[in-house]
Amino acid sequence: MLNVAMAEVISRLPRIFGARSKSASMSDFFMIDFIDDRSYSFNPTGRLEFRNAVARRVPMKLIGTYLSPYARRVAAALISRGLPFEHEAVNGYREFEIASRYNPVAKVPSLVLDDGEILIDSTAILDYLNELTPSAPLIPAGSRARRTTLKLAAIGYGVYEQAANLSFRGRDVAATEAGRWKAQILGGLRALDEAARDGGPLRATPLDAAAITAIVAVEYLARTNPDLETLPAIPALAELVAEYRDAPPFALTRAAA
Amino acid sequence: MLNVAMAEVISRLPRIFGARSKSASMSDFFMIDFIDDRSYSFNPTGRLEFRNAVARRVPMKLIGTYLSPYARRVAAALISRGLPFEHEAVNGYREFEIASRYNPVAKVPSLVLDDGEILIDSTAILDYLNELTPSAPLIPAGSRARRTTLKLAAIGYGVYEQAANLSFRGRDVAATEAGRWKAQILGGLRALDEAARDGGPLRATPLDAAAITAIVAVEYLARTNPDLETLPAIPALAELVAEYRDAPPFALTRAAA
Repeated sequence: MLNVAMAEVISRLPRIFGARSKSASMSDFFMIDFIDDRSYSFNPTGRLEFRNAVARRVPMKLIGTYLSPYARRVAAALISRGLPFEHEAVNGYREFEIASRYNPVAKVPSLVLDDGEILIDSTAILDYLNELTPSAPLIPAGSRARRTTLKLAAIGYGVYEQAANLSFRGRDVAATEAGRWKAQILGGLRALDEAARDGGPLRATPLDAAAITAIVAVEYLARTNPDLETLPAIPALAELVAEYRDAPPFALTRAAA
Repeated sequence: MLNVAMAEVISRLPRIFGARSKSASMSDFFMIDFIDDRSYSFNPTGRLEFRNAVARRVPMKLIGTYLSPYARRVAAALISRGLPFEHEAVNGYREFEIASRYNPVAKVPSLVLDDGEILIDSTAILDYLNELTPSAPLIPAGSRARRTTLKLAAIGYGVYEQAANLSFRGRDVAATEAGRWKAQILGGLRALDEAARDGGPLRATPLDAAAITAIVAVEYLARTNPDLETLPAIPALAELVAEYRDAPPFALTRAAA
């Protein structure tokens, strides 16, 4: 119930907030309580109207700029499951001191829970979010389906790692090293492409942790390594990305160019 | 039952196989079926005798040299839970082609299951091993204890990452960058130290995924960055490491200097 309603609201964000919504932080939006999905409706002009809505404490706060694919995949997972959160776009590299306050090893994302408990590491955070949404698991329970999702997610963030290496250090290392990173990126993408074919595990709905990770991987790669033309080699994965490009989890977390 | 028996057998390895055991691979040992713990006994001279023991197919094969803390923590977890495995000490960096056969992004560890299914990524592999040992979980089920273990494990491998960066790239980067990595390492160690104090979560028995990850982190750091004197700053963690130094999960997975 909640998920469907939230997705509908999010899909109408531009109409609700107008042009400003494109740069508004998610927290502006999620400060309204949507736990009760009868608390709002759309009037005939498409404008959102609230009934019985109360501002309340935001239950979770995500720390980390969406320039980080690790932070972005957590944000996309939160939005895909209709989980309200506030967002603090900390750049772990440029704002090292701030990132250190949330995480002993000073990385993003961190997730601050309602009672002040802080989670770190995108994989551990996704494990927790999965606990919150048993009716639409991000990670299937037990056995083979679970292993497949965790494996594909690991391949996806393996692509993040090497895309970051290639982008930030590619010019400083020997050509053989850069070539190795490219091979790792392409190897990962090909495996994801195979999984994105019709009936493949990345085609599960709703999107699971692996599919979210993979879609973010392709966009991260395109942004950080625009010269690396990979899309022709991964038709099924490219199709998956195109299909979800404008869906709220991705449209609302796309970092400015 | 199995775990206790296995630990006992492992503790007697030198007497069983003599000097050779020090360099024997775990697979020599685990080719014997210990599922039935009445299948062996020790004779009065301390020598192992088998009854009803049969050689059988090794159910899992771990790919990755113990120079990799990620591979080592998986091996330590396998041994700590008495899970038989064969070991192929592939160096992901020097043996890129071999690592690529098991993992699209060419990293270690990979874990090959009995039916040929291949798992990758140490976190995903630990998640699977946890399924196999419900009576002695590596990762507690649900809620706060689970989050704590996953968080501490993430801090531990955050230390792996920055220890690797500092060791392999520390001389090629600016002092500020190297200083940042040291701060991340020390921040992580201090958080682990706090968790290793009496009654702290790293003191749970049997060792969980977080404690295994932390112990491997301290040893990895000492080996890769011997000039970084950290032990005085982490008394509780150092005590934990000293206590388990000679236990099978660590003694049998220590990479040669």
